[in-house]
Amino acid sequence: MARLKRIYLDESEMPKQWYNLAPDLPTPMNPPLGPDGKPVTPEMLAPVFPMNLIEQEVSMERWIDIPEEIRQILFQWRPSPLVRAYELEEALGTPAKIYYKNESVSPAGSHKPNSAVAQAWYNKQFGIKRLTTETGAGQWGSALAYACAQIGGIECKVYMVRVSFDQKPFRKIMMQTWGGKCVSSPSTFTQAGRNILAEYPDTPGSLGIAISEAIEEAVSDPSGKTRYALGSVLNHVMLHQTVIGLEAKQQLSKVGIKNPDVVIGCCGGGSNFAGIAFPFMYEKVNGADIQIIGAEPFSCPTLTKAPFIYDHGDVAQMTPLLPMYSLGHNFVPAPIHAGGLRFHGMSPLVSASLRDGLMEAQAIHQSECFEAGLLFAKTEGIIPAPETTHAIASAIREAKKAKEEGKEKVILFNFSGHGWMDLIGYDKYMSGQLSDYEYPEHEIEANLAKLTGYPMPK
Amino acid sequence: MARLKRIYLDESEMPKQWYNLAPDLPTPMNPPLGPDGKPVTPEMLAPVFPMNLIEQEVSMERWIDIPEEIRQILFQWRPSPLVRAYELEEALGTPAKIYYKNESVSPAGSHKPNSAVAQAWYNKQFGIKRLTTETGAGQWGSALAYACAQIGGIECKVYMVRVSFDQKPFRKIMMQTWGGKCVSSPSTFTQAGRNILAEYPDTPGSLGIAISEAIEEAVSDPSGKTRYALGSVLNHVMLHQTVIGLEAKQQLSKVGIKNPDVVIGCCGGGSNFAGIAFPFMYEKVNGADIQIIGAEPFSCPTLTKAPFIYDHGDVAQMTPLLPMYSLGHNFVPAPIHAGGLRFHGMSPLVSASLRDGLMEAQAIHQSECFEAGLLFAKTEGIIPAPETTHAIASAIREAKKAKEEGKEKVILFNFSGHGWMDLIGYDKYMSGQLSDYEYPEHEIEANLAKLTGYPMPK
Repeated sequence: MARLKRIYLDESEMPKQWYNLAPDLPTPMNPPLGPDGKPVTPEMLAPVFPMNLIEQEVSMERWIDIPEEIRQILFQWRPSPLVRAYELEEALGTPAKIYYKNESVSPAGSHKPNSAVAQAWYNKQFGIKRLTTETGAGQWGSALAYACAQIGGIECKVYMVRVSFDQKPFRKIMMQTWGGKCVSSPSTFTQAGRNILAEYPDTPGSLGIAISEAIEEAVSDPSGKTRYALGSVLNHVMLHQTVIGLEAKQQLSKVGIKNPDVVIGCCGGGSNFAGIAFPFMYEKVNGADIQIIGAEPFSCPTLTKAPFIYDHGDVAQMTPLLPMYSLGHNFVPAPIHAGGLRFHGMSPLVSASLRDGLMEAQAIHQSECFEAGLLFAKTEGIIPAPETTHAIASAIREAKKAKEEGKEKVILFNFSGHGWMDLIGYDKYMSGQLSDYEYPEHEIEANLAKLTGYPMPK
Repeated sequence: MARLKRIYLDESEMPKQWYNLAPDLPTPMNPPLGPDGKPVTPEMLAPVFPMNLIEQEVSMERWIDIPEEIRQILFQWRPSPLVRAYELEEALGTPAKIYYKNESVSPAGSHKPNSAVAQAWYNKQFGIKRLTTETGAGQWGSALAYACAQIGGIECKVYMVRVSFDQKPFRKIMMQTWGGKCVSSPSTFTQAGRNILAEYPDTPGSLGIAISEAIEEAVSDPSGKTRYALGSVLNHVMLHQTVIGLEAKQQLSKVGIKNPDVVIGCCGGGSNFAGIAFPFMYEKVNGADIQIIGAEPFSCPTLTKAPFIYDHGDVAQMTPLLPMYSLGHNFVPAPIHAGGLRFHGMSPLVSASLRDGLMEAQAIHQSECFEAGLLFAKTEGIIPAPETTHAIASAIREAKKAKEEGKEKVILFNFSGHGWMDLIGYDKYMSGQLSDYEYPEHEIEANLAKLTGYPMPK
C-alpha cells in the first residue's frame, strides 16, 4: 500500500449515532447521590441542565442518534483526519505504527466543540437563552463560545480558572470574537467566588471552583432561561465525544487495521480520553485485545493515586455526589500549564472503566510532556496543547517499549488540541524555567480525610 | 447533489507540478536590473540565493516538477480543503456560491509553508546550512522555522518587523519551538538596521527594512553557507504557491464547476494571491471569463494607486531593481494589523498581470476587514488572520453585488491564514480602539519623487 499520511472520511461517513458505554460496563454504574444520600432524580437536575440532556445523562441506550442539524455544524471540521506519525516514528526508530486523531482542526482548536455544539443545540431546543460554564486552559470556554455563535440566539458566559486566565490572555479575546463573555475565577460575581477569595486571596483557582461559580449563576437566574454547560466529566459529554473513536475505527479499517494494539488519551475530566477510547472499549468488552491508557499529570494523579469514592465535582459542593476517582473536592492542583488536566475528580464513566479493568493509567511529569511536545512539533509539525503532550509522552513511552520488544504495534492516540494559545509554557520549558511538581501526598490525604462519612460506591 | 461542506482531494491527487505564469503573460516580463542599469545575471544573485532556486526564478518553463521529498512534507496538511461557505452565504442572503480554500490548516497556520518547505529543501540540496529571512506579521517567519525543522540540518534566523514583534509576542516563541531564532527589526545586528535606528529610533519597522537586514546577514557570512529566503515577491515563491489554485480547480470540478466567476486573494507581496489566482489566469489567457481581484489595504495602496516602475524591494537598496507597482522603497506603511500586507512593492509577476489586464484590484479599510472577519468567525467558525480579512471583505462585497444583480455567481477566495496570533487586532476593533488610515498621498508622492532617474519598464 502506498504511503498515506492522512486518512480522511467523507462527510457521509461521519457517525450518525453516538456510542454510550454505560450499558456495556461489566459492573452497573453507581447513581449520583443528592444531599440526602439518595439517588438524584432527573427533576433535581432540571435547574442546572435542560431535560433533553438529562435524558442523555441517564440513558442506558447503547446508540443515540446525532440530530442532523448538529452533524451539519460538525461538518465545519469533521470528520477529522487520522494521521500516521511517520516522521515521529522515524525520529524514535520504533517499529510501532503511530496514528493520531487530529482534533486540533476544529475552529476552537480542540475536541471540545464536539460536545459544545451538541449542548448548545439541545439547550436551544429546550428554550434556553443563556449558558454559563467553566474553563481550565480555555479550550472548553472557547468551544462553547464558538458553538453558541453557530447555533445562534444563546449567550455564553465563561468562568476561566485564574492561573490560565493570566497565562493565556488571548483566550478571553477569542471567546469575545465569537460573542462570548469571559471572566477570571474565582470572581466577585458569585457567593462561591467571594467565599474563596476571602479565604485564599492568592489562589490560582481550579476547575472545581469555576464550576461552582458557573452553576451558582445558572441556578440563580430568576427567568429560568439560564442553564449550565459542563465541558467534561458527565455522561452526556463523554457520549458526544465518541465521534472521535468511531471515526478513528473506520479510518484504521481503511488501511487494513481492525483494532489498534494501544489506545491513548490524556485525562483531566475525561472527555477527550472517552472520545477516543470508549468505542474501543466496546470492542474490548466484545473480546478484542486492546491496551487502553489514560495519561494524567504526575501532580494531579487522580487515576493513579486517588480512591474510587463518592465526591462532589466542585469545591462548593453544588454538584451531586459522583462515583469517581477523586483527590477530594478541596484539592487545588499545582499550576501546571496543562490547565485542562487540573481537576480533582474524573468522569464517572471513565472511573468505572478503570475500576472494571477496561483501561489503565500513567502519571507523567510536565517536563517529560513538554519534551515530547517539542519532538512532536519538530517532526510532525503541529505544536500540541500542554494537555495533549501527556498523550504524546505516553505514546512515545509505548513506542519505545515496542522498540525494546521488537514488536510492530499499532498505537493510536488522540491529538486533542493545538498549543497556539499555550506558548508561554513552551517558552518556560525551553528557557529552563519550568518546574515539575511532586505527588502532593499529604495534601491529598488531608483532603480525603474531610470526606469521612460520605457514602461509598458499591 | 447532497450538501457538501468540505471538498477534499486524495494525496495522490495533489499536483505533481507547479505552474509558472511567466511564459503565459501577454507581454514579456521586464528583467530585474543591477546597479549599472543592466539585467542582473544568475551569477549576481548567487550570494543571496542557491543556484537551483535562481534557475526557477528565471525559468520560462510552464510546468515545473515538484520533487517527491517536498510533496511528502506537504502531505502534513495538503491537499488542503476547499470549503463551501454555506453559513456565510446564508448570513448575507446572497445567491452567490462562496468557496474558500483553507490554507490555515498548515502547521504554521497559513499558506506560507508551501514555499518555505520548498525553499528549505532546495537550499539543503545546495549545501546551505543557514537561512535568514524577514517576516511581517510572523506568518512567513513561522513557516520557515517550521520548514527548517522538517528538512533538518538548516538553522533559521528571522528579522520580524518591530510593530508586529511587539503586537504578537507569541510568534517569537512559536519560531523557537521549531528551533528558529527571531529578533525585532530594525535591529543592531546589521548596518542597515543601525542606520535606520539612528535616523528613526521610533520607527515601527517595515518589511523593506527587515529584508535589508536579512540579506545583509546572509551575504556577509564568510563561510558562504548562509543564504536568504524571501516569503513573497519573487517568481519562485509565486511558483511554489500555485499548488493552492491547482488544487482548488480540481476540487471545484468535483462539484461540477469548471471555473469560478470570481477569484479573490489579499495582496501584500503577492504570494497567496498568486497561489490562488495564477492557475485561473492560465484559464483566462486560454479564453475563460474569470474576474480576478487582488484585495489590499487602503493605507498601503500598491495595486490601486502606485505607478508601474522599477524599484528596489527593500529600503537599503540591496535588492535588484524590480519591475513592479511600488509606493517607493522608503515608504513606511501605517501600522495596520495586517502586518503581512505592509509592503511598498508587489511581486513582479502579479504586477505584470495587473498591467496586462489579467486582474483588477480593490483597496479596503481595516475596519471593514475586521468587520468581515468577525462575521466570518461567527458564521464559518474560523477566526481569520487580519491579512485574510481583506480577501473576505472583498468576497463579501462581490457576494452583495451578486445579490443586487440577482446572479448566482461562484466566488472563490483564498483563506490564507487563521488569526490565533492576531487577536489583539480583534480586541481593538471590538473595543472601538481601531483606527483607519487614509491614503498617504503626499508621503507617496515624496517617496516616488526620490526615484527620479530610475530606469522605466517597457
